[in-house]
Amino acid sequence: MTGNSFGNIFRLTSFGESHGPAIGGILEGCPAGLNISTAFIQAELDRRRPGQSAITTQRNETDTIKILSGIFDNKTTGAPIGFEIANLDQQSHDYDTVKNTYRPSHADYTYEAKYGIRDYRGGGRSSARETASRVVAGAFAKLFLKHNGVSLYAFVRSVGAIESGIDPVEVDPASIELTPVRCPDAAVAHDMTSAIENAKKDGDSLGGTITCVIKGLPAGLGQPVFDKFHAVLGHAMLSINAVKGFEYGSGFAGTLLKGSQHNDEFIHDKSIKTKTNRSGGVQGGITNGMPVYFNVAFKPTATILKQQVTVDTAGKQTILEMKGRHDPCVLPRAVPIVEAMAAMVCADFILLNRTTKL
Amino acid sequence: MTGNSFGNIFRLTSFGESHGPAIGGILEGCPAGLNISTAFIQAELDRRRPGQSAITTQRNETDTIKILSGIFDNKTTGAPIGFEIANLDQQSHDYDTVKNTYRPSHADYTYEAKYGIRDYRGGGRSSARETASRVVAGAFAKLFLKHNGVSLYAFVRSVGAIESGIDPVEVDPASIELTPVRCPDAAVAHDMTSAIENAKKDGDSLGGTITCVIKGLPAGLGQPVFDKFHAVLGHAMLSINAVKGFEYGSGFAGTLLKGSQHNDEFIHDKSIKTKTNRSGGVQGGITNGMPVYFNVAFKPTATILKQQVTVDTAGKQTILEMKGRHDPCVLPRAVPIVEAMAAMVCADFILLNRTTKL
Amino acid sequence: MTGNSFGNIFRLTSFGESHGPAIGGILEGCPAGLNISTAFIQAELDRRRPGQSAITTQRNETDTIKILSGIFDNKTTGAPIGFEIANLDQQSHDYDTVKNTYRPSHADYTYEAKYGIRDYRGGGRSSARETASRVVAGAFAKLFLKHNGVSLYAFVRSVGAIESGIDPVEVDPASIELTPVRCPDAAVAHDMTSAIENAKKDGDSLGGTITCVIKGLPAGLGQPVFDKFHAVLGHAMLSINAVKGFEYGSGFAGTLLKGSQHNDEFIHDKSIKTKTNRSGGVQGGITNGMPVYFNVAFKPTATILKQQVTVDTAGKQTILEMKGRHDPCVLPRAVPIVEAMAAMVCADFILLNRTTKL
Amino acid sequence: MTGNSFGNIFRLTSFGESHGPAIGGILEGCPAGLNISTAFIQAELDRRRPGQSAITTQRNETDTIKILSGIFDNKTTGAPIGFEIANLDQQSHDYDTVKNTYRPSHADYTYEAKYGIRDYRGGGRSSARETASRVVAGAFAKLFLKHNGVSLYAFVRSVGAIESGIDPVEVDPASIELTPVRCPDAAVAHDMTSAIENAKKDGDSLGGTITCVIKGLPAGLGQPVFDKFHAVLGHAMLSINAVKGFEYGSGFAGTLLKGSQHNDEFIHDKSIKTKTNRSGGVQGGITNGMPVYFNVAFKPTATILKQQVTVDTAGKQTILEMKGRHDPCVLPRAVPIVEAMAAMVCADFILLNRTTKL
Repeated sequence: MTGNSFGNIFRLTSFGESHGPAIGGILEGCPAGLNISTAFIQAELDRRRPGQSAITTQRNETDTIKILSGIFDNKTTGAPIGFEIANLDQQSHDYDTVKNTYRPSHADYTYEAKYGIRDYRGGGRSSARETASRVVAGAFAKLFLKHNGVSLYAFVRSVGAIESGIDPVEVDPASIELTPVRCPDAAVAHDMTSAIENAKKDGDSLGGTITCVIKGLPAGLGQPVFDKFHAVLGHAMLSINAVKGFEYGSGFAGTLLKGSQHNDEFIHDKSIKTKTNRSGGVQGGITNGMPVYFNVAFKPTATILKQQVTVDTAGKQTILEMKGRHDPCVLPRAVPIVEAMAAMVCADFILLNRTTKL
Repeated sequence: MTGNSFGNIFRLTSFGESHGPAIGGILEGCPAGLNISTAFIQAELDRRRPGQSAITTQRNETDTIKILSGIFDNKTTGAPIGFEIANLDQQSHDYDTVKNTYRPSHADYTYEAKYGIRDYRGGGRSSARETASRVVAGAFAKLFLKHNGVSLYAFVRSVGAIESGIDPVEVDPASIELTPVRCPDAAVAHDMTSAIENAKKDGDSLGGTITCVIKGLPAGLGQPVFDKFHAVLGHAMLSINAVKGFEYGSGFAGTLLKGSQHNDEFIHDKSIKTKTNRSGGVQGGITNGMPVYFNVAFKPTATILKQQVTVDTAGKQTILEMKGRHDPCVLPRAVPIVEAMAAMVCADFILLNRTTKL
Repeated sequence: MTGNSFGNIFRLTSFGESHGPAIGGILEGCPAGLNISTAFIQAELDRRRPGQSAITTQRNETDTIKILSGIFDNKTTGAPIGFEIANLDQQSHDYDTVKNTYRPSHADYTYEAKYGIRDYRGGGRSSARETASRVVAGAFAKLFLKHNGVSLYAFVRSVGAIESGIDPVEVDPASIELTPVRCPDAAVAHDMTSAIENAKKDGDSLGGTITCVIKGLPAGLGQPVFDKFHAVLGHAMLSINAVKGFEYGSGFAGTLLKGSQHNDEFIHDKSIKTKTNRSGGVQGGITNGMPVYFNVAFKPTATILKQQVTVDTAGKQTILEMKGRHDPCVLPRAVPIVEAMAAMVCADFILLNRTTKL
Repeated sequence: MTGNSFGNIFRLTSFGESHGPAIGGILEGCPAGLNISTAFIQAELDRRRPGQSAITTQRNETDTIKILSGIFDNKTTGAPIGFEIANLDQQSHDYDTVKNTYRPSHADYTYEAKYGIRDYRGGGRSSARETASRVVAGAFAKLFLKHNGVSLYAFVRSVGAIESGIDPVEVDPASIELTPVRCPDAAVAHDMTSAIENAKKDGDSLGGTITCVIKGLPAGLGQPVFDKFHAVLGHAMLSINAVKGFEYGSGFAGTLLKGSQHNDEFIHDKSIKTKTNRSGGVQGGITNGMPVYFNVAFKPTATILKQQVTVDTAGKQTILEMKGRHDPCVLPRAVPIVEAMAAMVCADFILLNRTTKL
């Protein structure tokens, strides 16, 4: 409710600003007895890490995970898992220019309107640096999901107008990490990379879409009415910085079909399945055992290095010219964040579902 | 968490199945002292009522609101508002054919997978009949919002491929109710109506999109990180039956722009505003005082009267042929539901925001 | 949070005032597939019903339960269970005198301070009439607990200074209902009844204590740190009207012992048990499989028929002389309420505990 | 729900075990703009610190607070406040004997039953070391309360049978800290100290009661029905390690009075007050503006240095003989913990109450 927590049983509460001493969180509800590999958690963080390739921000953070509680003999104990990640490369002086200026399409103005006070260093709490905590919680969720036979992957489907037509359910997850842009469609990945490099050169930025696929979910997940599987999933995705839209299954395109074209026939093939999957693995808000797939729209990064007209905190018109480091396109680094949030949603619903029947 | 509640402070918990004796709910957190007009609540329900026009289901329900608590001398007392709406025209016999059959793209199979038991009469809890309770809570929310200078409206933007290009923020709310299809663009409304009538004749169904606009919100609403204004709004919309997607501001189309094209310049015109509004009134998850607008995608109604291949509860292939009443297109009746959910989100965030500053 | 809900998974939200058309609630999270006996629920309500004996208020309510949803073929479906109980014998005119007067030790003044408006008819929302909804939810919880091998009972341990020294764990539950005062100690029950009759004659009232025992709970229930089993149990009890204190196990008397006298030796007798049970079945906030027992203190009923000095709503001193119906001692009718709240706590913790381990 | 959080708006989530690298927490909902004195927070921690006097455990922890987020220019920003306290003097080897043994009246057995795994080092998560996080959150709450004109203090009322008859509402808060035992009644404090020293010499332990008084609360705090002011307060107190009972106002003793003796007459003296205060400042679950006071019962410390009969993890009888450091009486160190929890309850209800009226 205060906005820093996500999940019911499997629940992350996060803290931390871009330029404070550290960010981190507390993960509750991860069942006891789960084997934990710190190396896996770190590897997930490394996928989100700034400076990982030429097409991301050059802020240099090792993003080393430090777990403070909840693990004993490499197993979860059921106690809350406190963790932190130090902020090392802060360069606060970079941001002196924004102290008195509202950056366009950033949260500077809205945070000041809300709180009457603003930690202007690197965007403070509104910085996407906070998402590292989500990746940590998501890594725990992935370990729990693996134990339950569930797997998931996300990839960059489009950057600007460059879009891959690949069938998301048929993607080989290993192919996603082959390029820094995290698009499994090699030819398209190449074009995306060029486009991002060009945007970087121009001091401009690009948006795009990420597709995520979840396989192995049992039928029956999700809570009817207000907490439908896809509604909570959408909430999770829309909470990620820069996200502007969410659709699952046939999505917006599905509105163009007639019911007779859109409905998924049930078939029996070892178990009950559907012949097509325009439902995206969810019917009536509850999973049906088919793969879940969905798209997430990211706007172009608000931080650009071109001159922009804006106002200062006194309301006077001014020209903003930012320098320094920025992500010309957040999509490649957002892939593990999308996965992390999806994994948390699944873990929570699997646990909740244990309480459904007698 | 159990899926029947929405909101934190301003909070609806709903109950009821399509063919039980009644549906209803409990609304908590509506501030004390608000003048209540039962006529207004009933009028809102009438906008959602089945049988209201030739292009909706002919199920005949008066949907008469009965308030059981929380109101005294026509004012809210701060006590929870219990209410119910009787189910009158149930015709349970219509549904005997679905007792042993899973209707394609309905919740029959998933509910049975989840609970091991299913109230098959009219879809039971999964029926959109439940949304009447949302409209009641939304009516209270609208009265509270009006008191706070906030107004909102929704309208049908597209039915199938028939789409209105009207600027949503410029719509005259009064024009929406002029046609049964609830599209303020008269020419387009006419085409939509014809398309729905044709679908009905064919025993088929259509999907489409609804656009909603909220004006008068103060800057500062929404909770950072996980409960961003648009994330909760998206959750609300995705919880409505048949919704497949949500986008706000520039949405999916915004992914095609560069940052320099997408960013909204700040200007000072009496107060701080933005020159354009691709942000959709929300920056960093917090409202900035500009109009909020968003689109919601609805799939074509799953109930169609054509023959469909499916399986029975034993997994055996069968042909389903449904008869009787159905909505060939849910969009017109979904307009007040979208408004209701949006109103609840705003009311809750306004109340939460009272706790933000010292 | 808004105060009308109790429980996490197994969760009651209630509504209703003493003199509105009805009270009722929504019970969520009762697992699907539980056989429901409406007769049992009604029998539980009858134990709480006003007018059940000469020593309770003579307000005449049948308290007939009407279930509106969530049950199909006499089984829970997993959908929320909406229910209501009509208010029949309201006699609002009885309360005209209190419209402008604050009754001592009632909630009249505090509700008006909180909300700025007050439904003065019979105490409105602050009336103990609301507890009927708890008894309904508690009846469902008892059916679920029975299915899990858990049983519980409560009884009146003391009325004023008249106290039974009976060992709570050894009580035969059937003996409790043998007297209208619900004390299983026959001789003491007789004295209690006389004392209550005398208080009634005097227009005065009495307080007392109720003891409750829960048997058959598995070890492992309760959530560490803030939601310890006994902390939630205490919360539940303290939420009942007129309750002033809660203690479990050795309670306040345990503060007089030394650690060497108070600690419970572990023994192995088929399973791990404790030789004594000063812990009251809870250690470190988690149940240990031994019987849970606790005491609840109820103040004397605030409604008395003697003249009292008080102030009116303008703050002017006045003499209040109430007439009509009152409970000279709430204890006998509070027994099923204590049981209901205890049953809800246990049901919720049993469900939550399913999520603890891998 | 997972037991590591307390509060709704003003909300602490804590983490950490006795012998992990650190304990800490995240405090959400502390309103933006509050001036923070780290020295004050540290001073509160020092009141709870082990090793502070001869009558507490000699575990040597500096309990230095490290704030990681949420503060900027010495003011709260509205962002969550992450904090940690390192564990320095762990001496894990002290606990090797308890690895395979269940200590009587400790949480060893119940945690193992719940989770199937146990961090046996110093009691792990069940250790009262966790309460340091509560003191930190409570210090923030106190600063917020001070801003709202609310003050509170707690003191040791009894140790074993040695009890002070002092009127709690008349205590001079400054007098509490004059003795290490934190009883403002000097003569009684002396006897308590002797009793604790003797218990320590004997390797035994003592229990007792703490009384807490809250002054300056406005009328109107608390949520009706399930979250009554005193119900949440009781929950808070019962969540503290070793607590066995809670009573407010007249408490258990009030059950011996008649209604005519117990009711508090309303008077008008500048504002509406009550002549007596057996209600303990709360009527119908809502504060009435009079001082709130309550008692909390603590059992004797479960850790004693005498030989005890118990079982090992295989269920075999064994003799336990613990060595090393322990608190012969937790009461003196529990005083700031009681205050902290009470302060958090008040802060949360003050914030919630802002949403009550139009």
